[in-house]
Amino acid sequence: MPSTKFQIAVSLDGYAAGPDPSEEEPLGVGGEALHERIIENAAWRKSHGYEGGEVNASTPVIEDWGTGFGAVLMGRGMFGPPNGGPWGEDPWQGWWGDSPPFHKPVFVLTHHDRDPLTLDDTTFHFVSDGIDSALEQARSAAGDQDVHVAGGADVIQQALAAGQIEEFELHVAPILLGGGRRLLENVGDLEVEQERVIEAPGITHLKYRVVK
Amino acid sequence: MPSTKFQIAVSLDGYAAGPDPSEEEPLGVGGEALHERIIENAAWRKSHGYEGGEVNASTPVIEDWGTGFGAVLMGRGMFGPPNGGPWGEDPWQGWWGDSPPFHKPVFVLTHHDRDPLTLDDTTFHFVSDGIDSALEQARSAAGDQDVHVAGGADVIQQALAAGQIEEFELHVAPILLGGGRRLLENVGDLEVEQERVIEAPGITHLKYRVVK
Repeated sequence: MPSTKFQIAVSLDGYAAGPDPSEEEPLGVGGEALHERIIENAAWRKSHGYEGGEVNASTPVIEDWGTGFGAVLMGRGMFGPPNGGPWGEDPWQGWWGDSPPFHKPVFVLTHHDRDPLTLDDTTFHFVSDGIDSALEQARSAAGDQDVHVAGGADVIQQALAAGQIEEFELHVAPILLGGGRRLLENVGDLEVEQERVIEAPGITHLKYRVVK
Repeated sequence: MPSTKFQIAVSLDGYAAGPDPSEEEPLGVGGEALHERIIENAAWRKSHGYEGGEVNASTPVIEDWGTGFGAVLMGRGMFGPPNGGPWGEDPWQGWWGDSPPFHKPVFVLTHHDRDPLTLDDTTFHFVSDGIDSALEQARSAAGDQDVHVAGGADVIQQALAAGQIEEFELHVAPILLGGGRRLLENVGDLEVEQERVIEAPGITHLKYRVVK
């Protein structure tokens, strides 16, 4: 039974991004530190085409993200910067370069219609009629595999509030951002069960199942 | 080397108490659920004079709270309800009954001077000249033992912001309160290191050391 899930790094004070995001600091001031231990990991490096890196308790957790899903859902801000040029004949290609790391259909929730964009083996589909439609299209594309809601916080909140998430994992970084984008707010009446806890060097992985 | 520390239950969305606290629900709406797995534990029950209870991965964590500290600091709201009668000849004796579970000197940060109150083997000292004075008095009373900052969130925030906490442990309950009293805000520029993670049934214990 395929499920819809997300995993995301948060600060100890609950932020998925720091304050004042900009093109230089898309995750806000201090936000890069959320991913510090993740991008140093051998599993993350391998999935992004690099060699080396740390092998520790986080490694199987990160490897697990890359398997079992057949489609990705993300928000407009995760696709590319807000001032990335007008849609049209010369569309902005997003943050992800010529060879995005998804290798699956990606559905981008946006307010602006746009034709699909294919970069290497990843095709971005732009959905302008809301979270339910985006999830429906992603599930259809995923077939018997999971849908991975990649972020940012806004899309995750919409999916949680719509009761559309079955499982999620938080990677709690030992930092306090003191401001920015909180993850777990505006999510409605949510009941969860603790599923799995993994202590890794400099980060903790907390997995929960949504009951309601 | 004695240290000053705190441990407190928080919801997955970072609240140490739910919204709308009242005399009936001092931890706010839904806040009692923060402690559900703790008060069912054999270690908590034993320290409060009861038999039985769950024995699991939380047990040694809870047992550990009860050892090594020589004084307690708490806020006025943790001592007793806000409308607990005027200070004076018939002072309100707080939430803790005739035999409080502290068995150590307790320093209560308050805006109102008041003579010490002894209940069984616990004496409450009321400190009206600020967090630094309260911590100094608590450390002096504790001698070569630790000081335990018991809460609530407001006193913990003051102690963190004053750079006076060396170590803390969060007991993350798998609930979302959606509002109430957030723990980790207004704490200034805080750097921490992850020290220990313990997965227990229905709760996760996250311990951090303060670096700065």
